[in-house]
Amino acid sequence: MKISNDARGVYAIAPTPFHDDGAVDEKSLDRLTDFYLESGVTGITVLGQLGEAPKLEHSEALAVASRVISRAGVPVVVGVSAPGFAAMRALSDAVMDAGAAGVMIAPPASLRTDDQIIGYYRNAAKAIGPDVPFVIQDYPLTFSVVMAPKVIRAIVAENPGCVMLKHEDWPGLEKISALRGFEADGSMRRLSILCGNGGLFLDFETERGADGAMTGYCFPDMLVELVELAARGERNAAHDLFDAHLPLLRYEQQPGVGLAVRKYVFMRRGILASEAQRAPAGSLSAAARGEVDLLLSRLAAKDPRARMDG
Amino acid sequence: MKISNDARGVYAIAPTPFHDDGAVDEKSLDRLTDFYLESGVTGITVLGQLGEAPKLEHSEALAVASRVISRAGVPVVVGVSAPGFAAMRALSDAVMDAGAAGVMIAPPASLRTDDQIIGYYRNAAKAIGPDVPFVIQDYPLTFSVVMAPKVIRAIVAENPGCVMLKHEDWPGLEKISALRGFEADGSMRRLSILCGNGGLFLDFETERGADGAMTGYCFPDMLVELVELAARGERNAAHDLFDAHLPLLRYEQQPGVGLAVRKYVFMRRGILASEAQRAPAGSLSAAARGEVDLLLSRLAAKDPRARMDG
Amino acid sequence: MKISNDARGVYAIAPTPFHDDGAVDEKSLDRLTDFYLESGVTGITVLGQLGEAPKLEHSEALAVASRVISRAGVPVVVGVSAPGFAAMRALSDAVMDAGAAGVMIAPPASLRTDDQIIGYYRNAAKAIGPDVPFVIQDYPLTFSVVMAPKVIRAIVAENPGCVMLKHEDWPGLEKISALRGFEADGSMRRLSILCGNGGLFLDFETERGADGAMTGYCFPDMLVELVELAARGERNAAHDLFDAHLPLLRYEQQPGVGLAVRKYVFMRRGILASEAQRAPAGSLSAAARGEVDLLLSRLAAKDPRARMDG
Amino acid sequence: MKISNDARGVYAIAPTPFHDDGAVDEKSLDRLTDFYLESGVTGITVLGQLGEAPKLEHSEALAVASRVISRAGVPVVVGVSAPGFAAMRALSDAVMDAGAAGVMIAPPASLRTDDQIIGYYRNAAKAIGPDVPFVIQDYPLTFSVVMAPKVIRAIVAENPGCVMLKHEDWPGLEKISALRGFEADGSMRRLSILCGNGGLFLDFETERGADGAMTGYCFPDMLVELVELAARGERNAAHDLFDAHLPLLRYEQQPGVGLAVRKYVFMRRGILASEAQRAPAGSLSAAARGEVDLLLSRLAAKDPRARMDG
Repeated sequence: MKISNDARGVYAIAPTPFHDDGAVDEKSLDRLTDFYLESGVTGITVLGQLGEAPKLEHSEALAVASRVISRAGVPVVVGVSAPGFAAMRALSDAVMDAGAAGVMIAPPASLRTDDQIIGYYRNAAKAIGPDVPFVIQDYPLTFSVVMAPKVIRAIVAENPGCVMLKHEDWPGLEKISALRGFEADGSMRRLSILCGNGGLFLDFETERGADGAMTGYCFPDMLVELVELAARGERNAAHDLFDAHLPLLRYEQQPGVGLAVRKYVFMRRGILASEAQRAPAGSLSAAARGEVDLLLSRLAAKDPRARMDG
Repeated sequence: MKISNDARGVYAIAPTPFHDDGAVDEKSLDRLTDFYLESGVTGITVLGQLGEAPKLEHSEALAVASRVISRAGVPVVVGVSAPGFAAMRALSDAVMDAGAAGVMIAPPASLRTDDQIIGYYRNAAKAIGPDVPFVIQDYPLTFSVVMAPKVIRAIVAENPGCVMLKHEDWPGLEKISALRGFEADGSMRRLSILCGNGGLFLDFETERGADGAMTGYCFPDMLVELVELAARGERNAAHDLFDAHLPLLRYEQQPGVGLAVRKYVFMRRGILASEAQRAPAGSLSAAARGEVDLLLSRLAAKDPRARMDG
Repeated sequence: MKISNDARGVYAIAPTPFHDDGAVDEKSLDRLTDFYLESGVTGITVLGQLGEAPKLEHSEALAVASRVISRAGVPVVVGVSAPGFAAMRALSDAVMDAGAAGVMIAPPASLRTDDQIIGYYRNAAKAIGPDVPFVIQDYPLTFSVVMAPKVIRAIVAENPGCVMLKHEDWPGLEKISALRGFEADGSMRRLSILCGNGGLFLDFETERGADGAMTGYCFPDMLVELVELAARGERNAAHDLFDAHLPLLRYEQQPGVGLAVRKYVFMRRGILASEAQRAPAGSLSAAARGEVDLLLSRLAAKDPRARMDG
Repeated sequence: MKISNDARGVYAIAPTPFHDDGAVDEKSLDRLTDFYLESGVTGITVLGQLGEAPKLEHSEALAVASRVISRAGVPVVVGVSAPGFAAMRALSDAVMDAGAAGVMIAPPASLRTDDQIIGYYRNAAKAIGPDVPFVIQDYPLTFSVVMAPKVIRAIVAENPGCVMLKHEDWPGLEKISALRGFEADGSMRRLSILCGNGGLFLDFETERGADGAMTGYCFPDMLVELVELAARGERNAAHDLFDAHLPLLRYEQQPGVGLAVRKYVFMRRGILASEAQRAPAGSLSAAARGEVDLLLSRLAAKDPRARMDG
């Protein structure tokens, strides 16, 4: 079960649950996995930036990935970004052996020119090997690397393993149109495009040709429904649903605060036992919790999934 | 008529209208000024980043500022950010002579440490002179300068002319609370805080203690109403209004695209004769125009101000 | 008298002399011009970063450029980098009318992808017009823009006016070899390459194929001699001369300190009346002055030009 | 044997030797260790940036550190910089158990304000524990974090374990004077200051009060001699020695090229069996090797240590 370039739907970006003392919380991880499955996701992505991957030791990272893989029964993509290719290959080999569906690779911040970026992915693809499908993570706001559409096309052309783009450029709508245009004019083979950036433009991204979402918004069930509505061409219903969630979604998309909001909501929903993050960690003030609570309560009036009972 | 630290309400950030050939369009500028006044703004800010200030020559910049000042009858703040203090002083002197209510100063991207930032504003304040009230523009996403709350406090303490903060840090809610906390504990005199960042968090910023908005969202009348609702404590009505506009507001807040959206909407509303920008310029694809049209039409169902007739 | 792609030798980057009160010091500017001519330079570049160009008003900038042009009798290149093309064109038109030999354009820091850089120079070339020869300033350390050799080739191919590269990438030796390789394989027409970056690698840059230097080191006469020795193939003599100056040259190449060192040495040499810079300005501590004095005195033992009499 | 705040002399920054196939080369590592000892270094630093630390897996990193520690008989500092504190603590615990003399911590690039930097070192110190002496690595060019002298003072004040500064700010001479000034006025306890940045200003850094060098220049024996000459006040001899090496030292200090030069020279000196780096790796062109050879041969005329026999 590997990801391919016709992947569609929603891949949930999973946070890594911790106990208050910083140990990985396996029971919460299981509940989270089950929750994603019940939400109807197509797949799950672990060990991304939001998964606090850089704060885990290699053995912990492998244990988290393996646990989700063995429980999920859906494709699991694993983030393997690393400062060196030795560590990238080691983690990639281990998680693919454990049953991962593919790996995700973000570019290091030092890359600037088109050829530097293309060369990096060439070397990364060589490091993980030709049989491992991989996802390009294109997130300039966080990684400071700007990939022109033609750079993505070149990476796709060179590397058969490149099957998916985690698209989170901002602004990013024209990039989706440009990539789909490359496919239409025959200059690029099909690429699965799943959108991140917190889902902040998912309403239009699906209309521009994205195949779905790969993001961690705390209501993955909404993302699933939105992608389905868009696929069926129910434009107004899709926008109505999106607009109802936008106030919270926008709040969750604040840099450095988003993960704290997400863990807090998952805790309130009974999925995580603790909202703890490993240091260095963001946190929510009392005022911020109140704001999230207000947003949830206002959302509940429009979408019953947001009702927090008890 | 100068700005002071008890300023409240909405300062509209005015774009600079151009003819298709790149010349400043004075008639559109007058219509725009009138439109802001009809929208109930407290003041107007010209020659900010959104006003394409760096693309104007000194004489053009002065002409634009003077024209708005003489027509507006409300306080006009003028952006005077410049790479050197000589040019800053020259423009500041000229616009204050022309009747400006104060000036706005953004930090150069090279500043990093607390003392570098404090020192820069000390020198800038010295350059413009003690009688000119000024606004700190705190916009890390654009300027790459991060100001801790205590840095802002130090700038306020050193410079009597510092009366206002254009707050557009992201995330930024805790910063407002921190600054209001400084006032409450007596460690900082009162500062007018008007929020920018496209208004993306104005719903909560007003609740955290902001005095209003200084931003260029294409419905300044909505901003005025929102700030008034918040001031009267009508929390639900404020959030309802904000949420109705959020889909468009979020679309307008895309980096590099926002000004194009804004000028397009002002053109559709009959205020600007052209959506032209001076090079280097962003622009809207046909798909993007369609998206803005959809957002306007969906908004019109909730807010009649968004109806584009004929 | 315009610059062309076969320019060779040394273009001195001129600082702008100020009186202690910040006014432009025309007499010192004249002495400086004469000094450069006596040093044997091929040309002079004014209003670069080191010339404190961003701190001058438009009229001052034009006056400085015109004064040097009318006195020099050698080609004068004028920096016209500006945040917008309107200001760039205005300054370019004015200095070309005044007799400049060409203009120099640095890229804005926001450019990242290859096509963004190529597109910027396309628009800049259009703004200044087809008859104005221009110099690309390639200085990533200061401008944060990284140009691959093939990007420079594309700019040269598109713009007949592009005749010269101010090369100051670091590391940069392989870039010179790559560009000369493009010429050798017929994929790029000849480009004059003059090296900046304080001259820190001029010993090898000339051997890699550079045509000379465009930098502001305080001993332009040494640069002239070095370029001539290299052109004549007197490798050991060239390295001996370079190595003698390297301790001071390296000291002068410190970011933010260099201009202060340069003005101090020019003041000690009797060329500038004052070492004043306009704010924001770097300055030299007493310890730093002592260090420069030591370097000069040690240099004087090897090169009599460094003797400071009196 | 732990480092303390009165450490003086030279700590050699050790590269990690690899075989051509990328495996760690233990025999070369032993030869390198022996070479450092014969050169008279006070200590050795392993797993810094130049040691390709981010390209090693945890077990490899620990093995390299342990091997050097057990062989060296002088204090060994180990770089433990990591994106999360869990990995930092794990590596710190392991190498201190293996006999390391202390650890070195570089700041993550996301830090901007004074308090963010101070807070980071507070948390790092807590993670590694109060008994582990640590070194601040202050290298803005590489890490994009700018530490004002008073920020370093605050870190020293808060953390008893902070005993040493690897100083490699550029320009950096005034920072040394400022820190020694803090000690003189009683506002900061003594801090050992060892200079990096390739040694490019070591001639004056020692005169400003630095205790020595912590850098990887390929002639550590020269660094040892220079620091001793400076300590004895033999200023002219120190500068003569420094100036003789400056052409090569400057060449080695090119970003991204330096390690390749260093490994090449160590290979030519018979210490390393291979100049291989792990990907992503810099490399030397034939022209660059020729340039290094020329610099070595010119140096050999002044310093017999540079003679490459055979």
